[in-house]
Amino acid sequence: MREPQRVLDPQLPTSVTIYEVGARDGLQNESATVPTEAKAEFVRRLLDAGLPIVEATSFVHPKWVPQLADAGELMTTLVSELGDKGRDLPVLVPNERGLNRALDLGCRHIAIFGSATETFARRNLNSGLDEQFAMFEPTVARARAEGLDVRAYVSMCFGDPWEGDVPVEQVVTVGKRLFDLGASQLSLGDTIGVGTAGHVRALLTAFNEAGLDNDALAVHFHDTYGQALANAHAALEHGITTFDASAGGLGGCPYAESATGNLATEDLVWMLHGLGIETGVDLPALVEVSTWMAGVLGRPSPSRVVAALAG
Amino acid sequence: MREPQRVLDPQLPTSVTIYEVGARDGLQNESATVPTEAKAEFVRRLLDAGLPIVEATSFVHPKWVPQLADAGELMTTLVSELGDKGRDLPVLVPNERGLNRALDLGCRHIAIFGSATETFARRNLNSGLDEQFAMFEPTVARARAEGLDVRAYVSMCFGDPWEGDVPVEQVVTVGKRLFDLGASQLSLGDTIGVGTAGHVRALLTAFNEAGLDNDALAVHFHDTYGQALANAHAALEHGITTFDASAGGLGGCPYAESATGNLATEDLVWMLHGLGIETGVDLPALVEVSTWMAGVLGRPSPSRVVAALAG
Repeated sequence: MREPQRVLDPQLPTSVTIYEVGARDGLQNESATVPTEAKAEFVRRLLDAGLPIVEATSFVHPKWVPQLADAGELMTTLVSELGDKGRDLPVLVPNERGLNRALDLGCRHIAIFGSATETFARRNLNSGLDEQFAMFEPTVARARAEGLDVRAYVSMCFGDPWEGDVPVEQVVTVGKRLFDLGASQLSLGDTIGVGTAGHVRALLTAFNEAGLDNDALAVHFHDTYGQALANAHAALEHGITTFDASAGGLGGCPYAESATGNLATEDLVWMLHGLGIETGVDLPALVEVSTWMAGVLGRPSPSRVVAALAG
Repeated sequence: MREPQRVLDPQLPTSVTIYEVGARDGLQNESATVPTEAKAEFVRRLLDAGLPIVEATSFVHPKWVPQLADAGELMTTLVSELGDKGRDLPVLVPNERGLNRALDLGCRHIAIFGSATETFARRNLNSGLDEQFAMFEPTVARARAEGLDVRAYVSMCFGDPWEGDVPVEQVVTVGKRLFDLGASQLSLGDTIGVGTAGHVRALLTAFNEAGLDNDALAVHFHDTYGQALANAHAALEHGITTFDASAGGLGGCPYAESATGNLATEDLVWMLHGLGIETGVDLPALVEVSTWMAGVLGRPSPSRVVAALAG
């Protein structure tokens, strides 16, 4: 299977961390619901393909995300099969009830999902920005007291479907407040995929100026407007070393009207390996996993690399 | 219709030129053949949407590219309708016979299509690299003597399906030799879409060192491995100001096995406008054109922006 020609750039890091979100952010946005055993196999195969961090699921209420209603069963399976490696798989917890479930299963890494905008906080969390912090504060405090690592997603960082443009200062204020609750890393999300490379640089610079260095920041791009990889390139040049991506681009077909596809892990890996940057990922193995998952979902993968290399 | 938020980057140029290749490179790689009148309408609408340069067709032998067998009829129509504006539409000429046809129609801008590799020269042109220069030398000399502007495409600059990796030095040697025949600009093509951002920088730097400045260079990316826009971003940062792109990403569906889609003009424009860079393009009008052409072809556009904004 073809691999990219490596042409090193001495100004870029020699290795980066890919934070794989396909099993959670990907599958929660697919119309098809995947059987629990297939999800477990997906997570195992992603780990086998060398992904260093695989977010496994979300303990959100099934009323909101029926696709992940089997989160408890899935994590029980993975922890029993994988032991500590299973307990180290991050899980998203929306609130203290979700945290309780994660603690019961022995999970060691959780993620919370915040909004940078008032409107999305109201729509997604049924609460405003102030209530968002009031809800997350005890959740994160207890998680930290129990020794858990906490990642905080900040969504709508580059635009909001209802509010339109989102000021950089507002994102930094919200993000810093979430970080200061006790998170180890912020994941800055372009949830609707509208951001462009200069905007990425401006937001990252503003966070740096607010005291968060690049190690405390991850980027999470969606490809709705085709910008995801160019934005990742801009973030890489800025010095970011953690990149969220979704195997096979799971999370919304590009041909659906509400196209919201995540950056495909394979397309990111192709760029990184081409730049001579280590990821630990076995690209042909990952393409095989995504090709298999596309079969489970019954539709082709929106990843360009998967389309080019599979079959 | 949504447009990107403009976040300027003072290190980038304030305007760039998009060289639209959808009507030629796009349609010649589509399986469907488009009626001549629809092609003429396509070119007219692309001009109306603000594209500054629209390559209209190719005078290649219909045996090789049956999709463009109507090149003479199309150019007759466009020149008669548009006058000088029609004569200024670039047309690809494969050899002196093609140049004769272009001259007969009063065309003022031609493009020649060279290969950076021996194997592709043999496969595409039925000749090796030496014969390539022997064929182009009199063609370009006559075109220049007749006052025509000549653009030279260099294909397979980042990899070749048969030869694999292509050394940067080889591309520079071939490209410079084509340029020195009398071209005003080289278009450096990643014909199979395998190149990555560092490779782009390395190739452009090597051309600069060989005496070609950025004004003499254009870049032509295909999105086969999802790299096209990230590569365009790298070229933009390097100082390139002419970018080839194909309206709607015409030139091969991403789900076809031999995926060879061009960079979609809309996705490029979204990035450029987001960076505050002027292109002259009316994005909503362009999306309308591509949506219409997708209907003519009977398949959805592979452009992410078109998918997000249309319908």
